[in-house]
Amino acid sequence: MSLARRFILKLSCPDRVGIVATVSNFIASNNGWITEANHHADALSGRFFMRLEILADSLPFDIETLRERFAPIADDFGMTWHISDSARKKRVVVMVSRQEHCLYDLLARWHADELNIEIPCVISNHETFRGLVEWHGIPFHYVPVKPESKADSYAKVMEIFDENGGDVMVLARYMQIIPPQMCEKYPGQIINIHHSFLPSFVGAKPYHQAHARGVKLIGATCHFVTSELDQGPIIEQDVIRIDHSDQPEDLVRYGKDIEKAVLARGLRYHLEDRVITHDNKTVVFR
Amino acid sequence: MSLARRFILKLSCPDRVGIVATVSNFIASNNGWITEANHHADALSGRFFMRLEILADSLPFDIETLRERFAPIADDFGMTWHISDSARKKRVVVMVSRQEHCLYDLLARWHADELNIEIPCVISNHETFRGLVEWHGIPFHYVPVKPESKADSYAKVMEIFDENGGDVMVLARYMQIIPPQMCEKYPGQIINIHHSFLPSFVGAKPYHQAHARGVKLIGATCHFVTSELDQGPIIEQDVIRIDHSDQPEDLVRYGKDIEKAVLARGLRYHLEDRVITHDNKTVVFR
Amino acid sequence: MSLARRFILKLSCPDRVGIVATVSNFIASNNGWITEANHHADALSGRFFMRLEILADSLPFDIETLRERFAPIADDFGMTWHISDSARKKRVVVMVSRQEHCLYDLLARWHADELNIEIPCVISNHETFRGLVEWHGIPFHYVPVKPESKADSYAKVMEIFDENGGDVMVLARYMQIIPPQMCEKYPGQIINIHHSFLPSFVGAKPYHQAHARGVKLIGATCHFVTSELDQGPIIEQDVIRIDHSDQPEDLVRYGKDIEKAVLARGLRYHLEDRVITHDNKTVVFR
Amino acid sequence: MSLARRFILKLSCPDRVGIVATVSNFIASNNGWITEANHHADALSGRFFMRLEILADSLPFDIETLRERFAPIADDFGMTWHISDSARKKRVVVMVSRQEHCLYDLLARWHADELNIEIPCVISNHETFRGLVEWHGIPFHYVPVKPESKADSYAKVMEIFDENGGDVMVLARYMQIIPPQMCEKYPGQIINIHHSFLPSFVGAKPYHQAHARGVKLIGATCHFVTSELDQGPIIEQDVIRIDHSDQPEDLVRYGKDIEKAVLARGLRYHLEDRVITHDNKTVVFR
Repeated sequence: MSLARRFILKLSCPDRVGIVATVSNFIASNNGWITEANHHADALSGRFFMRLEILADSLPFDIETLRERFAPIADDFGMTWHISDSARKKRVVVMVSRQEHCLYDLLARWHADELNIEIPCVISNHETFRGLVEWHGIPFHYVPVKPESKADSYAKVMEIFDENGGDVMVLARYMQIIPPQMCEKYPGQIINIHHSFLPSFVGAKPYHQAHARGVKLIGATCHFVTSELDQGPIIEQDVIRIDHSDQPEDLVRYGKDIEKAVLARGLRYHLEDRVITHDNKTVVFR
Repeated sequence: MSLARRFILKLSCPDRVGIVATVSNFIASNNGWITEANHHADALSGRFFMRLEILADSLPFDIETLRERFAPIADDFGMTWHISDSARKKRVVVMVSRQEHCLYDLLARWHADELNIEIPCVISNHETFRGLVEWHGIPFHYVPVKPESKADSYAKVMEIFDENGGDVMVLARYMQIIPPQMCEKYPGQIINIHHSFLPSFVGAKPYHQAHARGVKLIGATCHFVTSELDQGPIIEQDVIRIDHSDQPEDLVRYGKDIEKAVLARGLRYHLEDRVITHDNKTVVFR
Repeated sequence: MSLARRFILKLSCPDRVGIVATVSNFIASNNGWITEANHHADALSGRFFMRLEILADSLPFDIETLRERFAPIADDFGMTWHISDSARKKRVVVMVSRQEHCLYDLLARWHADELNIEIPCVISNHETFRGLVEWHGIPFHYVPVKPESKADSYAKVMEIFDENGGDVMVLARYMQIIPPQMCEKYPGQIINIHHSFLPSFVGAKPYHQAHARGVKLIGATCHFVTSELDQGPIIEQDVIRIDHSDQPEDLVRYGKDIEKAVLARGLRYHLEDRVITHDNKTVVFR
Repeated sequence: MSLARRFILKLSCPDRVGIVATVSNFIASNNGWITEANHHADALSGRFFMRLEILADSLPFDIETLRERFAPIADDFGMTWHISDSARKKRVVVMVSRQEHCLYDLLARWHADELNIEIPCVISNHETFRGLVEWHGIPFHYVPVKPESKADSYAKVMEIFDENGGDVMVLARYMQIIPPQMCEKYPGQIINIHHSFLPSFVGAKPYHQAHARGVKLIGATCHFVTSELDQGPIIEQDVIRIDHSDQPEDLVRYGKDIEKAVLARGLRYHLEDRVITHDNKTVVFR
């Protein structure tokens, strides 16, 4: 897509009178053209959330100056804030195991330039997809994960991620539990697709659990990874209808379709800076 | 709807060669015209499920004779079976509290003769809907439920249900926990609508639980009531999308729409003898 | 719901720099507390759309003064604008024929005070629902529509609507074509529920058309009524899955469920001033 | 999936008493074990449809003998019928142009052996995907389509399809109109994914048409290709919600997700012999 370059401002702060006025004045006084704006005032928590897309060329200065001049406003309101530049493609490191559905889906979107990303590399605990990944011109790193040397494996993963300047790590059905210290090193940067409609069926083999309970819909959940397993902030979810004739293997097969769709949507929200987390939940400005 | 009179046979038994052949031979040899047929062979449990709709006028005998002649076949195959007559309207006793959405929905369907039922009475622990119910010509019974006299209250409910020849009891957001002995007296006859996508958020205030967890879809579950709270066989479920801007009260409001829709569908499946339970799960031949 | 009193401002105007800044400054300088804000800049048409909810008690003046003081801003930007007061319940006149599903659904929502409306009367071309409506304490007007005296009938309908101070007229499966002069008298005030997923299957018997074409989903459309039949701006739509076993009568039955749900959602958006029309389309700030 | 080998019988014929009895007797008398059975009696057309899956090893003879012995029964009832063998992978020739989403999706499913198919080759009017396809070990044929030599191009396509023993031709966003003589040569063998919820928005640029009309959902349709453009029997459809903020390019992007999902489901139904066409409609035994 040939969208014009934009700066994206997202912020949250305690709610009070005048936030929108102050921020939009600042933008307007610099002649900034806003193409998209979203606000959310959360009555229960008393917190305010905001996201703006501003045409980069409409401002008389660059992103660094924008940040400098916005900082005093942010301080006044006690904002947690972030400004990104659509011209800088985010660097997404993809982690896979032996299931292909999410990987192919992400590669197709990358090939179509749908997500405005670079994939500096793919990391896997199996060699299965080396050929496919390398055909796309993307480096492939095989990092086996053995019970006796997990710490070394994840040290290696973090090293590769850092060396590649990763912005986001996507667990595309990676099937391994990420150690707490790694979760804490990259807060809000690791995205997982869980194969159940959380909080139902946490843990292993959720489709078998779903079959045993006799539910009539199964789902998938895209969430940030935190040190508490399957408990991170939920970004996106969806479900698909099943019936009595579906065996656990059928649920696995249907599940793949919903997993890759939910991961792609959740990832896009995050990449476009549409997600703000607070209190283990997400505001998603779609 | 002016559908021709049909007999509905539903059965389950251990799977083996020849079940369909034997049953369909029996029907065909009596010149029976089958308008709808469904089978399901469950590979995991080795159990076979079947449902047939047969034009009543195509058979040379009445339903009693049909049952007599079918009994030996059922014995041979070890079937659990049931034959019903579409000309006999099932008697549905509706239990309500102070929320109107499911009650209005059921009354509209009854008024349109959509469900092929009689509602011999409505029972409530509040007087709120006496006028509405009685305007429809349906008797209304006020049975208060106090902590100190619950046993008496449910004895009264069971008495009313029995005196009215109830086939099905529908908990249309009744908001009271049915005592185990009542669940056991009417197995597979009490249908509840639970305001969450089970097994998520069992127990009280599920919409508040859902809001606290930050899920992106909420749901409702229609299930048979058993003595284990919220654990009975699931008949039907559905979900609706929410987002960060929805407060718990919004979830309650959206939830009503999905609750009444799911209850109506689940109830219809049961009334049309489309549901067969086995091993705390349901086969639903839609 | 016991929401605090709010003033709702909705507007549209040609897009340019400074709209949000000017409007939010105006609100903030009067100490107004914004509880909900939505913007949309339509790149294709170059038009800007905005909706604000402001706590009434946070402003130092009443709605009339608010309108007076906002008018010069609106003039500067060439705005089409509207300010409403949540404390003033909108008056919804419901038009029905002989189908009950939408009527019961609206009455249930009215009874639960879910829509924040008054229903000053129901108008019908049949006597069918007089008793039900009057039981709710709502006046019922029987206005038959005969081919030879349609003009008189609609003159009567408009007279009743005006006498009752109607804000919105809802065609709740009214099944009659509204004459052009009536459509033009109440632009953006008449809401219809059409029993197909427009633009598919315009005109009569859409479910039979859908069955004949063999589609796998059927739908319903809530739209504003204009003098061009089934062509007005679409407010809300939804679909439901069907299959080969569903006959036209089944589609009619399923369709009712989707019709009443879509009508209720579309009507709520309109009642809460969430809908802005432009160029025969709608912006819906959900 | 390691499912046991099955023979799949599908048939349709005028409805009458005794069809199921006769067919199931035939299977049972040969000790055949039925794993899945579906029937449909269409009241409007008076036609009966049936599909059986039988464990191959439970029968005392091979598929040829099965066909021979079944033929007299088929003749008696005037059946249109077909018996296939799950052990014989169907040969699916994929036609693509320059959009990747459906191609990647099909390759991922093929790679996971989810569809039980062989892809003997991919044909395209562009060279874009040669490398990707050949990396999978699948031959790639570049057949340009020029206005002045369309007949030659399609002659070449048919030649390739025939030489490769194609069972099914999938137009995976091929974006070219198939000439009538080719449609007629392969009736019920060419499957297309159309990027609208037919019958809405036939012809070119359906997403732009949808945007112009202001619909609130967009969809995709998987259908058999016939000589009448966009009018063939519909196999599967689905929709996705959009809103006013979505520009035509957004609809194109969302549309891709629904297109590939609908194509994959429709294709699977066809490959598993779950689809029977009659009167330009489909019976789909899911």
